[in-house]
Amino acid sequence: MTTDATATLIPGLEGIPIAESSVSLVDGAGGRLTYRGYSIEDLTQGTTFEEVVALLYDGDLPAASRTEAVSAEMESARALTEAQIEIARLAGERAHPMFALQAAVAALGPRQNDFEQSLGGIRERGVALVAKAGHLVGVIAQAAAGRPYDGPRPGESHASMVLRMITGGEPAAEHVAAMDTLLILQADHSAGNASTFTTRVVTSTRSEPEAVVSAAIGALSGPAHGGANERSLRLFREIGDPGRAEAFVGRMLDERERIPGFGHRIYQVKDPRSIVIQRLAESLLVDPEHRKLYDIALEVERVATERLSERGLWPNVDLFSGCVFNGIGVPVDFYTPLFAASRTLGWVVHMQEQWDSGNRLFRPRQIYVGEAVRDFVPVSER
Amino acid sequence: MTTDATATLIPGLEGIPIAESSVSLVDGAGGRLTYRGYSIEDLTQGTTFEEVVALLYDGDLPAASRTEAVSAEMESARALTEAQIEIARLAGERAHPMFALQAAVAALGPRQNDFEQSLGGIRERGVALVAKAGHLVGVIAQAAAGRPYDGPRPGESHASMVLRMITGGEPAAEHVAAMDTLLILQADHSAGNASTFTTRVVTSTRSEPEAVVSAAIGALSGPAHGGANERSLRLFREIGDPGRAEAFVGRMLDERERIPGFGHRIYQVKDPRSIVIQRLAESLLVDPEHRKLYDIALEVERVATERLSERGLWPNVDLFSGCVFNGIGVPVDFYTPLFAASRTLGWVVHMQEQWDSGNRLFRPRQIYVGEAVRDFVPVSER
Repeated sequence: MTTDATATLIPGLEGIPIAESSVSLVDGAGGRLTYRGYSIEDLTQGTTFEEVVALLYDGDLPAASRTEAVSAEMESARALTEAQIEIARLAGERAHPMFALQAAVAALGPRQNDFEQSLGGIRERGVALVAKAGHLVGVIAQAAAGRPYDGPRPGESHASMVLRMITGGEPAAEHVAAMDTLLILQADHSAGNASTFTTRVVTSTRSEPEAVVSAAIGALSGPAHGGANERSLRLFREIGDPGRAEAFVGRMLDERERIPGFGHRIYQVKDPRSIVIQRLAESLLVDPEHRKLYDIALEVERVATERLSERGLWPNVDLFSGCVFNGIGVPVDFYTPLFAASRTLGWVVHMQEQWDSGNRLFRPRQIYVGEAVRDFVPVSER
Repeated sequence: MTTDATATLIPGLEGIPIAESSVSLVDGAGGRLTYRGYSIEDLTQGTTFEEVVALLYDGDLPAASRTEAVSAEMESARALTEAQIEIARLAGERAHPMFALQAAVAALGPRQNDFEQSLGGIRERGVALVAKAGHLVGVIAQAAAGRPYDGPRPGESHASMVLRMITGGEPAAEHVAAMDTLLILQADHSAGNASTFTTRVVTSTRSEPEAVVSAAIGALSGPAHGGANERSLRLFREIGDPGRAEAFVGRMLDERERIPGFGHRIYQVKDPRSIVIQRLAESLLVDPEHRKLYDIALEVERVATERLSERGLWPNVDLFSGCVFNGIGVPVDFYTPLFAASRTLGWVVHMQEQWDSGNRLFRPRQIYVGEAVRDFVPVSER
């Protein structure tokens, strides 16, 4: 064995800065999330997803004419070829929609691999990826449900297109507004989360934007990152009634099981996104079945918070988001893909920022703890 | 503006350790690369790719019976479903083969997304990914060339399958041996290169292995990482004759253009992999056209080394690999996909090591340099 320990390994690079960024700020102690300085509470009440696309790229809130231009750009950029749709459908019929989405986005890559784009080119392809990712989630949902392809309609907003394609029905206006809120809410969360960090590492090899976003989707799919948001709703369904939540969650805690929807590496208080989602849930969930799941969620929050808050575990964005997704007709398998469609915006803006800041190749090092150089042994002597 | 500069940003995390690893060691000053302690010079002369699969997973060179077992495992695991083949073909007919491969590997992902595998499960899915990645590169090459699908044959080695499927002919034994060498040579290169680092970051979210490897392919596709190996052969073709190399390269250097195949972040001497590839080129390239490209490469090396070595730029693995790939009938678009098929082995072994070492989620931090919290502005006032 040879050991090379000239520097200390910090597992997960916790606390190590990897970029200067001005996109969003997570205040873990204060429980605040801002995009370009604006709080998500304000943004989710006063803007659409298209306005937030303009905000994150431009650095400030758009005038109405700017929003119109960005909306038109997204509408035209969301088009997919027949082959791109077919790939998404084939994958969506068989694999989990997150892997289908990761595949479908990679398949958007160009024929050549010699990315020497101007920065303008990166912006345009970034905006196109936001538009196409939403479209692809819709394509995959249609395929997974065995429905034929029914694509975007002229003039349809991004939120409206995504929700209609996923649910297969004409969405109510308040459901579209909820989808706008959910898309805005999960659009960015600083540079250090695993999928945005992946975005920066892959961008640093000067990969094509499609390859970058596909890789980020792979990172988001993991249950330690985005992939756990299916789990809270599955738990609430299993509990089945608010009256059973206390005993059920108590037993889970006694057996030291993880409660989905609790805990976050950064927030030391209740996740500000879950507060926005609760506001949405309160106004939206009128159907008794939907309301009941939300009531179970509230009981889970109450019981789990009593015992988990002293260990620093607080409700995160996943605790209530499933109730709202369920309330607007999104199947449980599509919670993480919708998170991906939303976060694609953050990823492409960080990709832009990474390019603008010089885009130095990520090339950290290992601490070698393996065998020293040794002589080869021919197969006859092994 | 608010600034948070409590720690220094090191662009590209240069010199920062991100893992303890015992898979391979790159000695940049000495110009040596070892896998589990064995030098690549020895391994490329004494083993097959299947033996190196066993070596990297087991930690030592396999006995003959162990190689047989791993070969049988790979042969059975390389099978693809009709839909997986169709997705690879659809993507391969349209996108660069690297993006087609990234898409096709993601589409191998399972129907559920709740990875709680035993470590045994990770190993098996890793070996299967190595086997399937080679198969998929072949599928994509067939589709890109407009040939029908013609899959693996019973008893065919990995190198033989890959080369036959890519070229469309029955490969000569010495070409298969060269393919084995190339597959071994690029199978791993420590934990810190961008695609292996991506592997570790994505693994840390507990993503499925298919999502992990697909993401790593995205990182490798970038021209600052694997994607530049197409460029040296394109340059040699443009030069056209060894006698023109001096003037051509001199002009490029005068204009401060980058010479493909030169420079590496780690090696301060000639890349040991390029020495192995030259040994291969000397014995393999007998056809006058192939030999001529190699002679051009040698001239480029001579002229560029004179002026670049004082700046610390030495021949890297990409300088001669194109000549050998070309010599065994691999089209230029498939140099990076073959690199990916080879490196998939390194990625899955690092994925295993990441899991075995506790798999702490990567969660570095940003230095925020953006706007302080500010009041929302309604659209009428923008």
